[in-house]
Amino acid sequence: MNFKMIGRFLSQLIAIEAAFFIPALAISLGYGEWGSVQAFGCTMAICLAIAGIMYAACRKAGKLFGAKEGLVCVGFSWVVLSLLGALPFTLSGVISNYIDALFETVSGFTTTGASILADVESLPKGLLYWRSFTHWVGGMGVLVFLLAIAPGQDKGFTMHLMRAESPGPDVGKLVPRMKDTAKILYTIYIVLTVLCFIFLLFGDMNWLEALCTAFGTAGTGGFGVRNDSMASFNAYTQIVTTVFMFLFGVNFSCYYLILLKRIKGVFFDEELRLYIGIAVASIALIAWNVYHIYGNLADTLRHSAFQVSTVMTTTGFSTTDFDRWPAFSKGILLMLMMVGACAGSTGGGFKCGRLLLVLKSLRRNIRQILNPQKVQVIRNNGKVVSESVLDNTNAYLAAYAIIIVLCFAIISLDGFSVETNLSATLACFNNIGPGFDLVGPMCNYSAYSDFSKIILSIAMLAGRLEIFPILVLFSRSTWTRR
Amino acid sequence: MNFKMIGRFLSQLIAIEAAFFIPALAISLGYGEWGSVQAFGCTMAICLAIAGIMYAACRKAGKLFGAKEGLVCVGFSWVVLSLLGALPFTLSGVISNYIDALFETVSGFTTTGASILADVESLPKGLLYWRSFTHWVGGMGVLVFLLAIAPGQDKGFTMHLMRAESPGPDVGKLVPRMKDTAKILYTIYIVLTVLCFIFLLFGDMNWLEALCTAFGTAGTGGFGVRNDSMASFNAYTQIVTTVFMFLFGVNFSCYYLILLKRIKGVFFDEELRLYIGIAVASIALIAWNVYHIYGNLADTLRHSAFQVSTVMTTTGFSTTDFDRWPAFSKGILLMLMMVGACAGSTGGGFKCGRLLLVLKSLRRNIRQILNPQKVQVIRNNGKVVSESVLDNTNAYLAAYAIIIVLCFAIISLDGFSVETNLSATLACFNNIGPGFDLVGPMCNYSAYSDFSKIILSIAMLAGRLEIFPILVLFSRSTWTRR
Repeated sequence: MNFKMIGRFLSQLIAIEAAFFIPALAISLGYGEWGSVQAFGCTMAICLAIAGIMYAACRKAGKLFGAKEGLVCVGFSWVVLSLLGALPFTLSGVISNYIDALFETVSGFTTTGASILADVESLPKGLLYWRSFTHWVGGMGVLVFLLAIAPGQDKGFTMHLMRAESPGPDVGKLVPRMKDTAKILYTIYIVLTVLCFIFLLFGDMNWLEALCTAFGTAGTGGFGVRNDSMASFNAYTQIVTTVFMFLFGVNFSCYYLILLKRIKGVFFDEELRLYIGIAVASIALIAWNVYHIYGNLADTLRHSAFQVSTVMTTTGFSTTDFDRWPAFSKGILLMLMMVGACAGSTGGGFKCGRLLLVLKSLRRNIRQILNPQKVQVIRNNGKVVSESVLDNTNAYLAAYAIIIVLCFAIISLDGFSVETNLSATLACFNNIGPGFDLVGPMCNYSAYSDFSKIILSIAMLAGRLEIFPILVLFSRSTWTRR
Repeated sequence: MNFKMIGRFLSQLIAIEAAFFIPALAISLGYGEWGSVQAFGCTMAICLAIAGIMYAACRKAGKLFGAKEGLVCVGFSWVVLSLLGALPFTLSGVISNYIDALFETVSGFTTTGASILADVESLPKGLLYWRSFTHWVGGMGVLVFLLAIAPGQDKGFTMHLMRAESPGPDVGKLVPRMKDTAKILYTIYIVLTVLCFIFLLFGDMNWLEALCTAFGTAGTGGFGVRNDSMASFNAYTQIVTTVFMFLFGVNFSCYYLILLKRIKGVFFDEELRLYIGIAVASIALIAWNVYHIYGNLADTLRHSAFQVSTVMTTTGFSTTDFDRWPAFSKGILLMLMMVGACAGSTGGGFKCGRLLLVLKSLRRNIRQILNPQKVQVIRNNGKVVSESVLDNTNAYLAAYAIIIVLCFAIISLDGFSVETNLSATLACFNNIGPGFDLVGPMCNYSAYSDFSKIILSIAMLAGRLEIFPILVLFSRSTWTRR
């Protein structure tokens, strides 16, 4: 294990995090929030000191960097970024318990949006900005960001890191060089975010609310700027958010294809079709089920579409207390929580692309039971899917199911209802945020014990990084020299 | 599709079912329950008439019989057996709604033990016997029974049927001929059932109670003979039941190895070790969690062990209202519901053997991500597991997860709580019986709508037959001629 190389990389990452605090610091200064200014200043100093020491210690690193190092590096980076990112909350005294601050920060970086804060509106503006900014940078990936801007990294290094951080069953390179892929992804991401911000400004939000909401939408995060999330904003703002959440749940390679004017490829993309199909079907079923609550079609459709979009893209805003919806609608939302968005988007969950592979692989299996002599391949968008990708997808499903079951059992120790524990597990692991019952959209996670909060934080990280980078951190072979 | 051969086989099966009614009829006669006598007589006449007509129509069947026919035949047989087995309940007027009677019968044959009856004690004795007998014959498999007694069936035919009906990732032939395997399995099954019956007679049960409980224990079914299941029987009876439930959850090939004096093979069996390990760990954790309820170690251990045994082997008796246990214990029981018993036992669920394969396959996958150049095989009890078995296991996991999610969403239409719907789905699909909340051990399934009862019945059949025989019944290619 090339720990020195990981250390050197981490030192760069921590330095970048220090730079991330600058806008938050500026906003705190602008609003005259001196407590926050001190907290951000202090955290920046700590970051720079750690980065300096680590860089000096790990300057001379070997070149060897494999898949294992990539996984460990990504897992480590996210843990360290969260540990440091939580400091301003505690240093400013806004969230006095550090575990709570850590939960909030992990929830931010992983774009979960699960909060322990009951009163968001009383947050200092600088911290409110920082909280939502973690969504934005976590959505596309901190390491991808570093790779996009840092000069001349090793090729194998870049590839292994991108593989480990990017979501989806198969990392699609848009262009031959990973570094260029990272740049293209971030460019699309920034353009879409700016568009979302501008559209929101035309509604009833002030600039900071619009910025924070754009961050939360782009990263499919879900930290709201008001205590009732999006319920008190007007219909225009809610519809804009619905549309942009849905757009950020689409595989970014589709946007790249559109830029290249290869619209046909987008139109026939099987994952995109599944994603749209599931969304439309869910909106229709829920609208039918909740029509009696809102009484008119416009409101019913707006609330159904918003909630389906927020849950399926794993964002986690809400315009209504969907915990009070009938059981059938809640059942559909629970299903959507697991399905998640498209691979290669900023959304989480199991991903439509994986679901497609699992379904195809199941169909092949049934066919093979019926006709044992016939060898069959699985195609995706016309291309044959390799068996190793299928094996990985199946292994992912197994790990996914096991983690849900274990996390659910462990947090039951706190004694809450099955609905609370199950939805909390699904909402954290799939990076959604709100669940049902005690962790419903109008409630928060503060009732859980510190121990459960740590477990849920690990689940959030495992969900965002697609399990394996976190799993290897718990593997013995990672820590022993051979 | 060789429908004639399936029809001929079905006619034999229905004739056997008619024979199964004889003891129930005799008991009804003995107790002077004339309503039941008429009902059983009528049903037998209907069965014999159908069997006769079918046999005449399908007498001349082709020889071709493949895996597909095996699956369809098994799926069909179970549906037909249930449809006919439900008649006595409705004809006698005891369960006036036929859908309810069907639910009860499917629950019986699939060894689920989920009931819609609030008052079991008022049932006529003949029907009480029939209800529990369905567990016994469903536990080892009706088709296996027919194969064990019927003369000279075609070899391929026997193999495909056994494959489709027997639980577990890989059907272990004990001896080269499938027919002999079926005989050995039924012999072990009968001997263990008789032992269980004799041990129960020494407790506080009368002969019919002991017989019905022995049937329910052997088939890991769970229909009780009293309204409070096993709670009002004494500690001796409860302990005997605990032990025998656990024994019937063990892979029957272990008993065959013991008969052959190959004790070492049993001792080192990985699945058995996992099964015992999970059970012991669960009993310990639950005992720690519920100690404050019972206040002394003996009662705590007895109730913990009984409930773990009943849920893990998917039986479904209860000695205490475990719906009132703390959330952590309920979480563990929900986990055990999914794990299930050993492959090749009468228990249901995902099966320990499959869990072992999934875990090993996951570990291999992680290792392969870390060391991509190394090819690794998976071993079970020292033998290399073929990739096709692994593929099937992974496909099974996928189908398993999808069915749980879909069934949960559909029955939510009735509007009950998440806990009720989730535990009802898990309890039916894994053939356990009682769940939590509205379907808890002291409640029943009568609150669900007829539609949900049919969905849950299909889930029970899919769980007992390990999904694929039921899935092919819904596949278009089964019903179209090519």
